[in-house]
Amino acid sequence: MDLNSDLGEGFGQWRLGDDEALLDVVTSANVACGFHASDPSIMQRVCARAAETGVAIGAQVGYRDLAGFGRRFIDVEPDELTADVLYQIGALEAFAKVAGSRVRYVKPHGALYNTIVTHEEQAAAVVRAVVAYDRELPVLGLPGSTWLRLADEAGLTTVAEAFADREYTPEGTLVSRRLPGAVLHDAEEIARRCVAMATGEPVTDVEGGLLRLAPESICVHGDTPGAVAIARQVREALTAAGVALAPFAA
Amino acid sequence: MDLNSDLGEGFGQWRLGDDEALLDVVTSANVACGFHASDPSIMQRVCARAAETGVAIGAQVGYRDLAGFGRRFIDVEPDELTADVLYQIGALEAFAKVAGSRVRYVKPHGALYNTIVTHEEQAAAVVRAVVAYDRELPVLGLPGSTWLRLADEAGLTTVAEAFADREYTPEGTLVSRRLPGAVLHDAEEIARRCVAMATGEPVTDVEGGLLRLAPESICVHGDTPGAVAIARQVREALTAAGVALAPFAA
Amino acid sequence: MDLNSDLGEGFGQWRLGDDEALLDVVTSANVACGFHASDPSIMQRVCARAAETGVAIGAQVGYRDLAGFGRRFIDVEPDELTADVLYQIGALEAFAKVAGSRVRYVKPHGALYNTIVTHEEQAAAVVRAVVAYDRELPVLGLPGSTWLRLADEAGLTTVAEAFADREYTPEGTLVSRRLPGAVLHDAEEIARRCVAMATGEPVTDVEGGLLRLAPESICVHGDTPGAVAIARQVREALTAAGVALAPFAA
Amino acid sequence: MDLNSDLGEGFGQWRLGDDEALLDVVTSANVACGFHASDPSIMQRVCARAAETGVAIGAQVGYRDLAGFGRRFIDVEPDELTADVLYQIGALEAFAKVAGSRVRYVKPHGALYNTIVTHEEQAAAVVRAVVAYDRELPVLGLPGSTWLRLADEAGLTTVAEAFADREYTPEGTLVSRRLPGAVLHDAEEIARRCVAMATGEPVTDVEGGLLRLAPESICVHGDTPGAVAIARQVREALTAAGVALAPFAA
Repeated sequence: MDLNSDLGEGFGQWRLGDDEALLDVVTSANVACGFHASDPSIMQRVCARAAETGVAIGAQVGYRDLAGFGRRFIDVEPDELTADVLYQIGALEAFAKVAGSRVRYVKPHGALYNTIVTHEEQAAAVVRAVVAYDRELPVLGLPGSTWLRLADEAGLTTVAEAFADREYTPEGTLVSRRLPGAVLHDAEEIARRCVAMATGEPVTDVEGGLLRLAPESICVHGDTPGAVAIARQVREALTAAGVALAPFAA
Repeated sequence: MDLNSDLGEGFGQWRLGDDEALLDVVTSANVACGFHASDPSIMQRVCARAAETGVAIGAQVGYRDLAGFGRRFIDVEPDELTADVLYQIGALEAFAKVAGSRVRYVKPHGALYNTIVTHEEQAAAVVRAVVAYDRELPVLGLPGSTWLRLADEAGLTTVAEAFADREYTPEGTLVSRRLPGAVLHDAEEIARRCVAMATGEPVTDVEGGLLRLAPESICVHGDTPGAVAIARQVREALTAAGVALAPFAA
Repeated sequence: MDLNSDLGEGFGQWRLGDDEALLDVVTSANVACGFHASDPSIMQRVCARAAETGVAIGAQVGYRDLAGFGRRFIDVEPDELTADVLYQIGALEAFAKVAGSRVRYVKPHGALYNTIVTHEEQAAAVVRAVVAYDRELPVLGLPGSTWLRLADEAGLTTVAEAFADREYTPEGTLVSRRLPGAVLHDAEEIARRCVAMATGEPVTDVEGGLLRLAPESICVHGDTPGAVAIARQVREALTAAGVALAPFAA
Repeated sequence: MDLNSDLGEGFGQWRLGDDEALLDVVTSANVACGFHASDPSIMQRVCARAAETGVAIGAQVGYRDLAGFGRRFIDVEPDELTADVLYQIGALEAFAKVAGSRVRYVKPHGALYNTIVTHEEQAAAVVRAVVAYDRELPVLGLPGSTWLRLADEAGLTTVAEAFADREYTPEGTLVSRRLPGAVLHDAEEIARRCVAMATGEPVTDVEGGLLRLAPESICVHGDTPGAVAIARQVREALTAAGVALAPFAA
């Protein structure tokens, strides 16, 4: 099983999350590429450390919106979005290469991630960027999303992820963050659910039924001290349950 | 002989110079990488067209300063400068790669170009970026500059350029732009001087003496309609004189 | 009658349109405030010249998106949009004040202009900014828009504008730019229509019927040399027809 | 005595320091204006709270360099610097006004602060901005700096500040941060020194001699939890010593 998390999401003088700590927990690092967060110095540091610790480096591409942290939908033209994604992948590749590694997958961030669950034109634009850059590059995303469907149709390797701390509907979609209880906070419960997901067991859905998720990667958060502690507990629980942790993209 | 020029120096809605026209004149395109000018869509367009026409793609790296067009010295820490340069090279590489080509050389822009003529720490920082990225990548610059000296000491291939439209001192340095007559405007005279440079003949220095420049590349400008016309005339004069034009970096 | 146009839409080294020429044509200058275009030096220059020539200075507020020139919808939170608009008005006010004048009205730009024709939350957010800043400040916009309706309900003075070079439907709404013929290019026809609008005569709508527009301001463009020539012709035709030209906001 | 501190130095999703806590400690808030840090939403929040608590709002103006947090010297043209400063003051003024207050002073930030201790052209450029905006606006800075000298010569009210946690030379200048011991960390010692400064008593200089500083304002830091605790202790010590705390600019 793979554990992925967003890293390198500081900017200039500002920090967000504890990159060092997370790199000891996850197997895949979604490294921000400077459009919604991060800067060259942060990217260099994160890639160097990821390469040292064997964590796979992924391009966490986002809208060009530092002020909004990539969390606001932008109605960008598809061709411009393709170019924006290529730029970000290339920039990260330089640091991966200098660290003796390479970019191993692509995962959209924030509002872009959410938008291309359903937005055909923008989803297709991101797919075109990956296809043009390297057809061998896997893409990470939400099962059932337009993004993964179009990527699959374009011949890309798609990797489905589940969220460690999110409640699911009986249909296997995420419960909206706007609803109470959408986000889980109890570390033991989160860890238990992750073990279930990783061993093919069902988890409880929001209505109390049983839901079998079969993710190839589990997404954990690291933007608060509490989040890092939960991520650690998830890792320990998986290891204790005999689940081998390794990047999905080698 | 190689003819190089700055390209892709628009941003968003704004344009500067006529990229299309220049790509029919030069053999090496110094493509701006988004820090002092350019954006992903422009970079993609310029790289695609350069690859089609056989023009070599070079990374024109600059300070992070869109508002100042990279023309203001910034006292950036050397390590941050190294990261900034790596980021820019990588971003451009994505578009070169997608166009079926690759980044073939590095040339600093504007205030960074001028600063590292003498600034040891910043010159060394840019050299470190190129060495880390690819030791085979040639660097373009001013003969006698700290930049080319440190690049040479680090084992990089250095390429010396001369300026088509600048007056030189008897010592072979550029006459400051602040002095009257520093910049030449007569297209015929500029073309004549370029032919002399390319054929090993001396040109007249600012004091009337003879000066033998032996550039491996000649820099022409293209940021005004007049500049493009001059660049065309330089190319025609070189061709008429039997000088073969080809990128220095194949 | 008032003639308004977008000004100060360059950025750094880049220019867009001929601010000097337009300031001799229009009576109200929609000055970009640095979020979608413009920078402090441009704003200072445009305000100084506008104050000299008696042109009213308006705040042309937009989304924070230099790369997209404010032409892309951004799903910004209403409270953030209110703050963004306040910031822009305040910044422009400094230059108006230094020039011996003040900001006399507010007109949204580009995608923000289009969005708040119908988007209640964002329209209300911009209205809140103006109300908080100065209840006496008129706002300029499209007749029938949510923006003008909410502004009116909030007690602001609303000013309806018509577009000199756009075709209208029989209902008085703009024909979409995506349809052929939506934008007029013939200078004489444009000038004739403007005279009709200014003198209470009907203009021809896109289906050949007669439409009576009663704008308090006519918007002309200035982003190309041709556009400036058309704007001049509009002014001359209005003057020849005895229409007095003056800012709506004194 | 006045206590001033830098506030509002987050950006978008990122935070730096605890603005809420500091606003209960200081009497003057140097509010970042969006060029080196801060954004419209932060500025609105800080101004609203400052106005509520009676803290004076000052414009903390800096270089246009979010990526470098305004800590890198930029060789900006004086006229552009004047415009940049005007823009920042105006933007902050909008939020001060909306909060029922106004901008009461100007204090440069970071590299700009340090540069204009000696740089005549840039110091004069900032002075010109304040003079053009409002001759009644006091300016805050380092005693003996070119900045305060030129401001004084231009007829501005100058306010000299001392640093709570910095070691001084016998001549009354700051010991360079590069030297060991330049920054004090012991809260009790810092508080004791502040009481001495505020009551006209001498403090110990770096060589053990006695130095009489007579600041009109004392600068405290708040960018770490420890810094806020020290600032609180300084306030308590001053109050305990009978020193009345109030903004220098009413």
